[in-house]
Amino acid sequence: MNRSRWMFAVAAFFPGIAWAAGGGVVAENLLWLAIILMAARLFSPLAERVGFPAVLGELLLGVALGNLSLFGIQYFDSIAKDPIIAFMAELGVIVLMLQIGLEMRLADLVKVGGRAAGVGVVGIVTPFVLGAFVAGPWLLPGLGTNAYLFLGATLAATSVGITGRVFRDLGHLGAPEARIVLGAAVIDDVLGLVILAVVSGLVQAGSVSLSEVGGIILNAALFLVGSIAIGRAIAPHSSRWLARLDKGQSMLFAQVLATGLFMAWLAHLAGLAPIIGAFAAGLLFEPVFFKTFETPRIVREVEALLPDHTPGGIHPLAERLREALTRHSGHQHEHMLEPIGYFFVPVFFVLTGMQVDLSTLADPAIVAVALGVTAAAVAGKLLAGFAAGRGANAWVVGWGMVPRGEVGLIFAMVGKQLGVMSETMFSVIVIMVILTTLIAPPALTLLLRKNHRASEATECGD
Amino acid sequence: MNRSRWMFAVAAFFPGIAWAAGGGVVAENLLWLAIILMAARLFSPLAERVGFPAVLGELLLGVALGNLSLFGIQYFDSIAKDPIIAFMAELGVIVLMLQIGLEMRLADLVKVGGRAAGVGVVGIVTPFVLGAFVAGPWLLPGLGTNAYLFLGATLAATSVGITGRVFRDLGHLGAPEARIVLGAAVIDDVLGLVILAVVSGLVQAGSVSLSEVGGIILNAALFLVGSIAIGRAIAPHSSRWLARLDKGQSMLFAQVLATGLFMAWLAHLAGLAPIIGAFAAGLLFEPVFFKTFETPRIVREVEALLPDHTPGGIHPLAERLREALTRHSGHQHEHMLEPIGYFFVPVFFVLTGMQVDLSTLADPAIVAVALGVTAAAVAGKLLAGFAAGRGANAWVVGWGMVPRGEVGLIFAMVGKQLGVMSETMFSVIVIMVILTTLIAPPALTLLLRKNHRASEATECGD
Repeated sequence: MNRSRWMFAVAAFFPGIAWAAGGGVVAENLLWLAIILMAARLFSPLAERVGFPAVLGELLLGVALGNLSLFGIQYFDSIAKDPIIAFMAELGVIVLMLQIGLEMRLADLVKVGGRAAGVGVVGIVTPFVLGAFVAGPWLLPGLGTNAYLFLGATLAATSVGITGRVFRDLGHLGAPEARIVLGAAVIDDVLGLVILAVVSGLVQAGSVSLSEVGGIILNAALFLVGSIAIGRAIAPHSSRWLARLDKGQSMLFAQVLATGLFMAWLAHLAGLAPIIGAFAAGLLFEPVFFKTFETPRIVREVEALLPDHTPGGIHPLAERLREALTRHSGHQHEHMLEPIGYFFVPVFFVLTGMQVDLSTLADPAIVAVALGVTAAAVAGKLLAGFAAGRGANAWVVGWGMVPRGEVGLIFAMVGKQLGVMSETMFSVIVIMVILTTLIAPPALTLLLRKNHRASEATECGD
Repeated sequence: MNRSRWMFAVAAFFPGIAWAAGGGVVAENLLWLAIILMAARLFSPLAERVGFPAVLGELLLGVALGNLSLFGIQYFDSIAKDPIIAFMAELGVIVLMLQIGLEMRLADLVKVGGRAAGVGVVGIVTPFVLGAFVAGPWLLPGLGTNAYLFLGATLAATSVGITGRVFRDLGHLGAPEARIVLGAAVIDDVLGLVILAVVSGLVQAGSVSLSEVGGIILNAALFLVGSIAIGRAIAPHSSRWLARLDKGQSMLFAQVLATGLFMAWLAHLAGLAPIIGAFAAGLLFEPVFFKTFETPRIVREVEALLPDHTPGGIHPLAERLREALTRHSGHQHEHMLEPIGYFFVPVFFVLTGMQVDLSTLADPAIVAVALGVTAAAVAGKLLAGFAAGRGANAWVVGWGMVPRGEVGLIFAMVGKQLGVMSETMFSVIVIMVILTTLIAPPALTLLLRKNHRASEATECGD
């Protein structure tokens, strides 16, 4: 007559009050979140000590947990399938992209717009052509044209979450390469939709509906241009108004986070990935909007200490202190996002790692083909890097485009559902997604470190 | 061929990668979280301006959203039934109780242990007797003994989340009343289990298994004593060790939050409410454990400014600044929990408000009976307040025990499932739960304000 068991029964009978039942059915999720949170925090400094970004630690932790079943430990298998943990992961990557958007300035992004578009288009077209007309027919002979088209579409996918995280972990979001890659990723999310629609149309109806392709592009463009234009018109005023309601920064924090969630939902409505919406939401807010906010309590506290030492007139130290403290706390709303990020972002990357099924690596013949396809996938994106032009390291941009992540898997799943993708091709694609996702973070890290040393050899390190 | 629709299909086919599908099925949750987050933040200063704690604003917002269906707007009905939002709410109340635990000292709680036990026992026994033997037979004549026993059990329930939040909103967690109420709530969670087991046993088997009752008490006592003893033995060492790994406070934050989640899960295993575990987790960490942590960057920055003004020797201002800043930032791990709280805590209270079905108030006869039962429910807990003894305001303690919240609903649901509770009695209990939950916050606020003015009339206000 344990209450837990009661609660379980109650929750099962009345889903409406499942929440009230003390989490009877979902209590295990509390344990999982605790494990992921703590493990990710512990892995982070360890990964950095070895010289790699924290995200690699989280991905590998996920790979380890997700493949314990190979050793007979099934316990963690249900995490990967749990819809609540899945939503936490989704929240995590949304918060990450919101943070990345906040740390960038729209003007800087617009400045590299043309080059980002070039990288985006080349980064979609080259891997598609390489996959559909070279690697496919050559490495997996005897399949239909439709299968090759789908392989090409899968190779064209771009997943920006991992690259964004690497740039952020290493403090390189201000670099032109980061701006170009993120701009290209936004463009690729739209182009990816177009490719998927075209290929699916060819497979299902044998033809492409131009009006449908136009609709996709129009929808996406309307969302991006419209929401950013409207949002940036509103944001300064709403920030000032909210500042008057609340002396702290909790209002601003809520505004930023709620906007991120809202625009993620809006992007989803427009057919885009929610993370693109969250990234756009981050671009709405510029530090200058928040100048009218009160200096936080700590400044007032410190100032209260100063007068004893400043009889008559303002002590110059007081001025400088206020400046230092305000500078430090000016972005407090961003700092308030950090704990949310610490909590949820690792859930996304651990879960991404858990999708890696190491048993696909058991067949040497498949692995050999997969390595060939992966080479095509990497080459296609690296070529795109050279579309970035002068002033940006082509290799950094190229490797930044390499991870296929969950987007590649989704494309493959659609192909499987349409019946054009054989089990072998699916396994090959899964391995390609695994390799591109796991190789990119260390490759980027090495390149960024080298780049940093080369270009700033005269400046002092941290 | 919208990708959202594709993702939906993919997610439906492969639940394992539902997360990867960009939240196809759960995108609406993003919108709901945005609305709850922003509305709760906006209501908070408005409620405070009127003189009530923010929690009342959140509860009423929930009542309003939950009853829009009376006006034909069904949109929000699905929120209350969504398991993901439900989990967010659960996380919210867990984070809240963890915060409350962190802000209290175990020693202070132990000091009022005897009085809390008195309040807890009286607060369970009196409402039970009043409900089962007075209000039940008198106001709802003609029902069986089992029904009255269950009514008594429902009146005995205590839900501490709402009271804890009111004390916290008003900054009264340091008051002896708060410590007594929270201590009594822990005891009542155990006693509530016992009552539910006894009553259910009588209803189902006609007898009470003493070994089962003993098992419940033993389980709960083992969990509480064991986890707190072990936790407090480990916490200082693990904190020191984690401090060495990470210069910031993110490690500590992760430790505290992960411990809260872990102990919530453990409490659930022991048959207790998860929030009791989260509260106990908060008690494990005392500020003194964190002294070895590095002073945050801001202190170093300010110190870097000072040397110019302190040629030779340490400027006394520098010392005092460091002190003020360290004091301010010493609890940074607690401050890092704040954003998590801002995000999730309102979800719990808005969802609690949404459980209030105003249509139950349509039948005047039922409302009349419910008012009588509510009077018994309030009177029983107010009586308990007088068990608090000298030095604590009996009315504050009593009103602090009044809200039945979700615990009362769970007890009623169990009774309904066992078939001993009529529809009428269930409606009566729902109204009682609504009234005790909604009346307690304003009543507590008025009492605490009066108490504060009376006892600290000579001290200056904020």
